[in-house]
Amino acid sequence: MKILITGGAGFLGQRLARRLLDRGELNGQPITEMVLLDVVAGNDFGDKRVRVETGDIADRSVLERAIDTKTEAIFHLAAIVSGQAEADFDLGMRINLDASRLLLEVCRALGHAPRVLFTSSVAVYGGALPDVVQDDTALNPQSSYGTQKAIAELLLSDYSRRGFVDGRVLRLPTISVRPGKPNAAASSFASGIIREPLNGERAICPVDGETRLWLLSPKSAIEALIAGLEIDREKLGNRPVVNLPGLSVSVNEMIEALREVAGEEAVARIDRQRDERIEKIVGSWPGAWNPERAEQLGLQGDKTFADVIRAYIADQKA
Amino acid sequence: MKILITGGAGFLGQRLARRLLDRGELNGQPITEMVLLDVVAGNDFGDKRVRVETGDIADRSVLERAIDTKTEAIFHLAAIVSGQAEADFDLGMRINLDASRLLLEVCRALGHAPRVLFTSSVAVYGGALPDVVQDDTALNPQSSYGTQKAIAELLLSDYSRRGFVDGRVLRLPTISVRPGKPNAAASSFASGIIREPLNGERAICPVDGETRLWLLSPKSAIEALIAGLEIDREKLGNRPVVNLPGLSVSVNEMIEALREVAGEEAVARIDRQRDERIEKIVGSWPGAWNPERAEQLGLQGDKTFADVIRAYIADQKA
Repeated sequence: MKILITGGAGFLGQRLARRLLDRGELNGQPITEMVLLDVVAGNDFGDKRVRVETGDIADRSVLERAIDTKTEAIFHLAAIVSGQAEADFDLGMRINLDASRLLLEVCRALGHAPRVLFTSSVAVYGGALPDVVQDDTALNPQSSYGTQKAIAELLLSDYSRRGFVDGRVLRLPTISVRPGKPNAAASSFASGIIREPLNGERAICPVDGETRLWLLSPKSAIEALIAGLEIDREKLGNRPVVNLPGLSVSVNEMIEALREVAGEEAVARIDRQRDERIEKIVGSWPGAWNPERAEQLGLQGDKTFADVIRAYIADQKA
Repeated sequence: MKILITGGAGFLGQRLARRLLDRGELNGQPITEMVLLDVVAGNDFGDKRVRVETGDIADRSVLERAIDTKTEAIFHLAAIVSGQAEADFDLGMRINLDASRLLLEVCRALGHAPRVLFTSSVAVYGGALPDVVQDDTALNPQSSYGTQKAIAELLLSDYSRRGFVDGRVLRLPTISVRPGKPNAAASSFASGIIREPLNGERAICPVDGETRLWLLSPKSAIEALIAGLEIDREKLGNRPVVNLPGLSVSVNEMIEALREVAGEEAVARIDRQRDERIEKIVGSWPGAWNPERAEQLGLQGDKTFADVIRAYIADQKA
């Protein structure tokens, strides 16, 4: 099986690649080739199955180089994150919308209907929301990122319905704890307020402590991407979009979990400094949704946020 | 005030133009210029305020010719109808999605944030639906037309949120009774089974008699378009998409209304001949939705379907 991962040099892309290479198979078939496409070159892990491709994913020829009729599974992770898509409207439209559509078009032209997995986001929801979002709750995105992701969901669903691809969309909770540096996502702090204090650095918490987030650990996200790609089309029916399980945790509860795991010293490194721009975007997202359907499809989340922090620490040591 | 109507040669476009010209004003301002843009030339009603423009609405230069900084109100009615968008995927994407986006882009480039009204459709809903669709019921379109309309809604909402346009979307029920000839809409029969028998012609009813439709008369649709354009932005809040009031009527009830108005002779001209392709599309649409918000915004529907038929007959005589 030949696999394409877009955003293949990114945090999730690299982690997914490594996990798949270790696993050796996907959907019961041996992985023979893996293309990691990104705007910068990703790590090929010294593995002969990996081909690193660099280029602009909104350029059709780049996608045509990355996909052929042997490409049976595509994980489309490339995206402009929420804060950046809000700051640069055209860039968000080009990558989050146009490139996603182009990817579907290239598959359609090839005609072999590969499995295509898009990732979407809590940001497709917004406005007046119930405490727990249900599968049939309307989307009302209050950011350009959320709008672009919602459009990509609709496109994938229709291309899938028409048989151009065998598509599925996983709506990801906010991923925490991400390793590395802060990024331009409005939710970047959701990792920063844990990661930086653990590294002995100061972190800013830009939202009210009562703000409720819907979180998923990187490890569980990777397992869900793989399980999501392996779901039989029939099980998805006419709803290829699935809300992934998450943990509903307030920012104060996240900080309490940090205290439990790393002590008062770590918590003292967090500065509370509210940022209206971030509060407006993050505050429009749901703090929880009903994960029942995802769980029925075999997709799983995390147990407690303290466990997520402990797993992050263990992972960084390894 | 300068007005643009796209699809200005179409049935609704021409009717809206005539109504606005008779009215003389929109949103409290005198109508000084009206551009009717379509792929074919529409009637200019011999009115000096009207300028007829023809061209491909997916061509940016055509839109740039039709819109300038004096254009304060845009009714975007141009569309590829449901049956045709299902038969010709690329054409539907180009007109229903790309042209709608282009129209928003041309407005954004001009920078004067005109009022822009998009029309959407029952077809944005689909899949498992409650008996009465609510404002917060999720969209799950089961046709390419519905997908493209849902995407245009999302685009307009985000362009509006960002202040590029002052946008609003009216989701129209199925319009019945349309005058003229059958068209490629899957719902064409919803006018045909009334219109053709009244004209002494035979008509085919392609769906089960229990199929429930959500209907609006042409007259009420035109009044709603005008009232919708005149709604203050503040009243729409962060939800510029409004579900218009309609009549929830089964096909059998429509035929009973025809019997009431025009007698057994008319009803005898209807042939029942089910068409799976049409049933699949029309059957995925809601038979009713909650019109409460629209009514609060001053948008109105019809009283009874028999009255709608009588108004159609009176209109044809006039």
